Amino acid sequence: MIVSLSAKHYASNNKAIGIFDSGIGGLTVMRQIHALLPHENICYFGDTARLPYGNKSPETIKKYARENADFLQDQNIKLLVVACNTACALATDLDSYVDVPLIGVIEPGVRNAVESTKSGSIAILGTKATISSGVYQKCLKAALPMGRIFANACPLLVPLVEEQLFTHEATILLIKEYTAPLMKHTPDTVILGCTHYPLLRPLFQEILGENIILIDPAYSTALAVQKKLRDLNQLNKSPQKGSCVFFVSDDAPKFKETGALFFKNSLELVTLKI
Amino acid sequence: MIVSLSAKHYASNNKAIGIFDSGIGGLTVMRQIHALLPHENICYFGDTARLPYGNKSPETIKKYARENADFLQDQNIKLLVVACNTACALATDLDSYVDVPLIGVIEPGVRNAVESTKSGSIAILGTKATISSGVYQKCLKAALPMGRIFANACPLLVPLVEEQLFTHEATILLIKEYTAPLMKHTPDTVILGCTHYPLLRPLFQEILGENIILIDPAYSTALAVQKKLRDLNQLNKSPQKGSCVFFVSDDAPKFKETGALFFKNSLELVTLKI
Repeated sequence: MIVSLSAKHYASNNKAIGIFDSGIGGLTVMRQIHALLPHENICYFGDTARLPYGNKSPETIKKYARENADFLQDQNIKLLVVACNTACALATDLDSYVDVPLIGVIEPGVRNAVESTKSGSIAILGTKATISSGVYQKCLKAALPMGRIFANACPLLVPLVEEQLFTHEATILLIKEYTAPLMKHTPDTVILGCTHYPLLRPLFQEILGENIILIDPAYSTALAVQKKLRDLNQLNKSPQKGSCVFFVSDDAPKFKETGALFFKNSLELVTLKI
Repeated sequence: MIVSLSAKHYASNNKAIGIFDSGIGGLTVMRQIHALLPHENICYFGDTARLPYGNKSPETIKKYARENADFLQDQNIKLLVVACNTACALATDLDSYVDVPLIGVIEPGVRNAVESTKSGSIAILGTKATISSGVYQKCLKAALPMGRIFANACPLLVPLVEEQLFTHEATILLIKEYTAPLMKHTPDTVILGCTHYPLLRPLFQEILGENIILIDPAYSTALAVQKKLRDLNQLNKSPQKGSCVFFVSDDAPKFKETGALFFKNSLELVTLKI
């Protein structure tokens, strides 16, 4: 009986962590999870046929998030990571929809920002949908009631990153424009509330100044995944390195090429989901 | 018997012209059709839940084009206009798929460019998918075998237009960058091969110089629609002004607001397609 239970546990622990994003951005989150938990199997889904989510409506984003979660649950996962700020901000009922534990990027990012700030003045950058949802602002207010919270949407940064214009004059101009109204309030901490933005981190640091603390929620998300799996006794105990498999809804070769920049590693096993 | 036939013809001529695009861009085409043929009923579909098409794969664009055509055919249309350069360039088999006559924007645009050029040197600007399909280049070569044809993709212009940055420094920088390699070949005619670009027409003219002839395929497309309906004896003979109805797959209020800029008129009767 005990043997059977252990075998069952072992099989269950071997299951993959499921991660989805609208496209390639979530690979910055996957990279941190893979680095922290190298023995975990990971199954990533990028909804490249319908990206970007950032300028779409709450109803559409909710629908897409459920469909993505269904697809990953069919892959027999043990935990779901929503590695897309927009989906986390809008599909707030996804937790009750799925059958596995769910971790998003917003709460870990907020926790990290609250730990980092000294002045209590925090700025958030994200897509239109993320910022207008108000979810980051609400979570920060709850965690830091006396905090001063400022937010601005940066709708063009995702396409600029997708075009790899990491140091282009147009990117510099737009970052200055998006951040100027926030910097008037002299925040000491700025949350990069979109998984594409960490690729612009050096530019943000240069423009905002070296004293600004930039928060990339990816690492805190990886820590949250580790804690959750440990609490559930679901960490993969296998001595072997975990496998990373990728599914996309459009154009696997393009995903493989651009995705490598986000994952900082080559992407094998990319499959087009029909 | 004759009366019955006429009545049938009349009912058939009353049917709407169907138009689809990935989002709002096709409204620049619809505007020209509506101006030229004010008595026609028009039914527009913008696939705003899945936009943009320009950076997606041929297979995905073909699939979306068929689904959009199916939806419009269910609205009982008499003619289908594909008011999206990317869909025209990639979904080249759509003509044999649909049951009604089909008109795209590429052939009318090519005809217009060939009529305009004096030097035989023509440049094309479009999305990545349109340019890499090579369809414009192939059509121009067929119509003007001695012509010198140059093309470049402008992947960031669609999001810049969607953000209404019509005169922004970032837009100027990127237009200069996208057009510089083409202008070396001193074309006298430049095709704006994406339905978003006409909104940047003044900026293009300023950057490229006033001697350059800019071709917006929208007006030639409207002429092609008029000719086709006349040939088929399907022009709407009703003395009343035609109705314009709009369907979108996401976020009707946003479409209504931004779409008015493209249609140069307010948009009533916008319905979210479920």
